Amino acid sequence: MARSVVLLSGGLDSTVTLAYALSLGDEVIPLTIDYGQRHQRELLAAKDIASHYDLDRHIIMELDLGCFGSSALTSMDLDIPERTVDTINDEIPVTYVPARNIVFLSIAAGLCECEDAHLLYIGANAVDYSGYPDCRPEFFRHFQRVLEVGTKTGVEGSPIEIVTPILKKTKREIVALGMDLNAPLHLTWSCYKGGERACGRCDSCLLRLKGFKEAGLEDPIPYEGRE
Amino acid sequence: MARSVVLLSGGLDSTVTLAYALSLGDEVIPLTIDYGQRHQRELLAAKDIASHYDLDRHIIMELDLGCFGSSALTSMDLDIPERTVDTINDEIPVTYVPARNIVFLSIAAGLCECEDAHLLYIGANAVDYSGYPDCRPEFFRHFQRVLEVGTKTGVEGSPIEIVTPILKKTKREIVALGMDLNAPLHLTWSCYKGGERACGRCDSCLLRLKGFKEAGLEDPIPYEGRE
Repeated sequence: MARSVVLLSGGLDSTVTLAYALSLGDEVIPLTIDYGQRHQRELLAAKDIASHYDLDRHIIMELDLGCFGSSALTSMDLDIPERTVDTINDEIPVTYVPARNIVFLSIAAGLCECEDAHLLYIGANAVDYSGYPDCRPEFFRHFQRVLEVGTKTGVEGSPIEIVTPILKKTKREIVALGMDLNAPLHLTWSCYKGGERACGRCDSCLLRLKGFKEAGLEDPIPYEGRE
Repeated sequence: MARSVVLLSGGLDSTVTLAYALSLGDEVIPLTIDYGQRHQRELLAAKDIASHYDLDRHIIMELDLGCFGSSALTSMDLDIPERTVDTINDEIPVTYVPARNIVFLSIAAGLCECEDAHLLYIGANAVDYSGYPDCRPEFFRHFQRVLEVGTKTGVEGSPIEIVTPILKKTKREIVALGMDLNAPLHLTWSCYKGGERACGRCDSCLLRLKGFKEAGLEDPIPYEGRE
């Protein structure tokens, strides 16, 4: 049985990715990075999702990227922007957290080596996404090379393999895959803001809502202003 | 004036690297990662070195790699090996911390982006070293590509540049450069063990002592069994 590490944020994409890894029969260790997000809602979602699957080795690592301070996802001094779904891809937004996926993959790679896990799953998406450079196929290709030359397992000939099952899927396809896999989409949290209900207006909410709508499904989580 | 981030462990190599960056007139932000080392001696050294240079923006980031648990540098359950200086390069030792330099470079890259710093100095060495794969030129070349394609500054055409001034120097040359630059070598700590005095027997001590000896200099730090 393959052993895998899955980066689990608690959002839709990483949860569908986790469901996918589990559907293959892998032994899965979910890894959540608590990086000083401006809200803890996502982190609670990640815990609920790991519990849903009875994954008792859910590793939560604290990393205070908040001291960097220049992203709207870690600093309360910056507002979460509200764009339209058509303009989301145009430029890198202030919600970009410097080097976030690079840091996450690095830590996950370290965990893979310690746990003798050879697959590293990340739910990055380069289709219906916010324009972050560290979500693109080119980035993952180069990071794969880093793991091949810069780690013990790589040098020994069995490098950790980065797996990005939803990289080239639309949000509609991701939602559909999640439904097929019976993923607990009702437990996921995508909104950049915290609170009891998702805002429905940030990039992340817009992309998610678009995905459910195009899949012809109702998003099971609560939104502001919606019964 | 260029702004730079320098990874500062408190050891000989990173201190000489810091001295080098400062000698070029760069505005320097030292970054030290407190990764759950089995002793805190190195961290104290890093603080003393930053103080020596009056660098008041010394950033110390906590990252608990100790939960990974399989390296002799983070776990008290494993003994620090004692080899001879001639066999050090033969295999990757148990002091290898999984993906350590990958994680360190990632975090430093994030800091660079936040601070608008375009140079990222790391005192890695691939000559008189312990055989870690993430100290080799090939690794840094590939990581450089990751920064070019996977970060905002990279995509915008001014990627962070990884600078490895001592990568291809012998320990003798590193010691000599440190002396030339008037680096505070007396404040540095290289020993893998903690304590008041360096052990003189671990890989790191052996390489350091060899460097001083070949440079015809006395190592200014105290060693066990030496007056």
